[in-house]
Amino acid sequence: MTVDVFFSPSVVDEGAVEGKTAVVIDVIRATSTVVEALSNGARAIFPTPSTEEAVKLASSLGREDTLLCGERKGLKVEGFDLGNSPSEYTADVVEGKQLVMSTTNGTRAFISAEGADRVLAMSFMNLSAVAEALDGVSDLVIVCSGRENRFSLDDALCAGKLVHLLAERRDEELEFNDGGRVVWDLAAKYSVDAEFLKTTAAGKNLLSIGLEGDLDICAAVDRHALVPEMKERTIALAPGQDRE
Amino acid sequence: MTVDVFFSPSVVDEGAVEGKTAVVIDVIRATSTVVEALSNGARAIFPTPSTEEAVKLASSLGREDTLLCGERKGLKVEGFDLGNSPSEYTADVVEGKQLVMSTTNGTRAFISAEGADRVLAMSFMNLSAVAEALDGVSDLVIVCSGRENRFSLDDALCAGKLVHLLAERRDEELEFNDGGRVVWDLAAKYSVDAEFLKTTAAGKNLLSIGLEGDLDICAAVDRHALVPEMKERTIALAPGQDRE
Repeated sequence: MTVDVFFSPSVVDEGAVEGKTAVVIDVIRATSTVVEALSNGARAIFPTPSTEEAVKLASSLGREDTLLCGERKGLKVEGFDLGNSPSEYTADVVEGKQLVMSTTNGTRAFISAEGADRVLAMSFMNLSAVAEALDGVSDLVIVCSGRENRFSLDDALCAGKLVHLLAERRDEELEFNDGGRVVWDLAAKYSVDAEFLKTTAAGKNLLSIGLEGDLDICAAVDRHALVPEMKERTIALAPGQDRE
Repeated sequence: MTVDVFFSPSVVDEGAVEGKTAVVIDVIRATSTVVEALSNGARAIFPTPSTEEAVKLASSLGREDTLLCGERKGLKVEGFDLGNSPSEYTADVVEGKQLVMSTTNGTRAFISAEGADRVLAMSFMNLSAVAEALDGVSDLVIVCSGRENRFSLDDALCAGKLVHLLAERRDEELEFNDGGRVVWDLAAKYSVDAEFLKTTAAGKNLLSIGLEGDLDICAAVDRHALVPEMKERTIALAPGQDRE
């Protein structure tokens, strides 16, 4: 199995993902929020690059069943229904709804992976479910969202924990690119918990805007056993997946 | 001391380097070649983004004292005087010459760092000299050239070895960005030698084009005690530096 890990969407071109399965990671917080939202009954999530496009798409979908979600600099966009805290995406808020979501880094990562055969969304919250869903995959690309296209330790650690699980599930050797080797080492060294996340740049940013509570959820490994998949820029439960 | 490490030039904007000292790394091979060339008496090196610009600049400088140097896909550009193998830059070839140099990743990294107060060039070959030259610096940015803007393990390890040396030289704590933490861990784990470089993506590429001999020079830690510095897109020995 080949495993290529990229630390930011800006370096992922068509050639990097073509014919492969892609896993998109944005631990703090887009993919954590996606997992929480789908688990709580959201029907679908539409990642959009800009807040303007989000507003436009939400209007065209009809505002009745649609929530407008997203952040800029970590905080809810003014006039939007929801920000990017997983804890906002409770069943009574999102069940049966479709979510138009614009986040700074996560959306960019999803779009960068569009050329892949399959695009899955992962955070610590659905790590084992994604590892299982990758059984039989021979070429994997992991796209870390990073922060403004820069390396983000939380995403890299999450990628590393995934490749450790893949190694446990398979007899074959994993063939890494340089990025894959680094995340392997990271996962061997660090454990996942909210305290660790607080030491990362993305975690520090949440602390600074008073949202450190989000880190407890983002660090909750295997909180949900579901796999979000994006098709034609719509993220929903992967085929064959049930809501828990 | 703050230490921000970036794994590719594409994420380095003006704001990232302004008011700081930047160290540019392209172990395989641009900064290794720069160090070797200056050590063997080259007067100055002009990094240029494209081969066309390199040809143009070389003509305007006068071809008598100027060598046209550079690679594409690792190999010497057709019609150029030299490729990007440090071993080509011997004293009898480069002494007293100015070099116009176009390399895929290294040039891009130098240009990305231009907004810094100082821009130094480093490889394993002048590691200790650069560490020493950074005494008194309080804000450091390390720009790894990477490969096509992607993470490159050889550059990251070199960055890590530098920060270990800085930590030894200073009483104060180093404050890292997420990238800095990763290179610190890498340097604690891996030793520098040609065998290690062969396992990196850039090293494998050299093997595939028959240039693995370059890796012995690129892995020669502290082969030279000099510090190249770029000013106005001209790389020469830093002020106060003597050729060994």
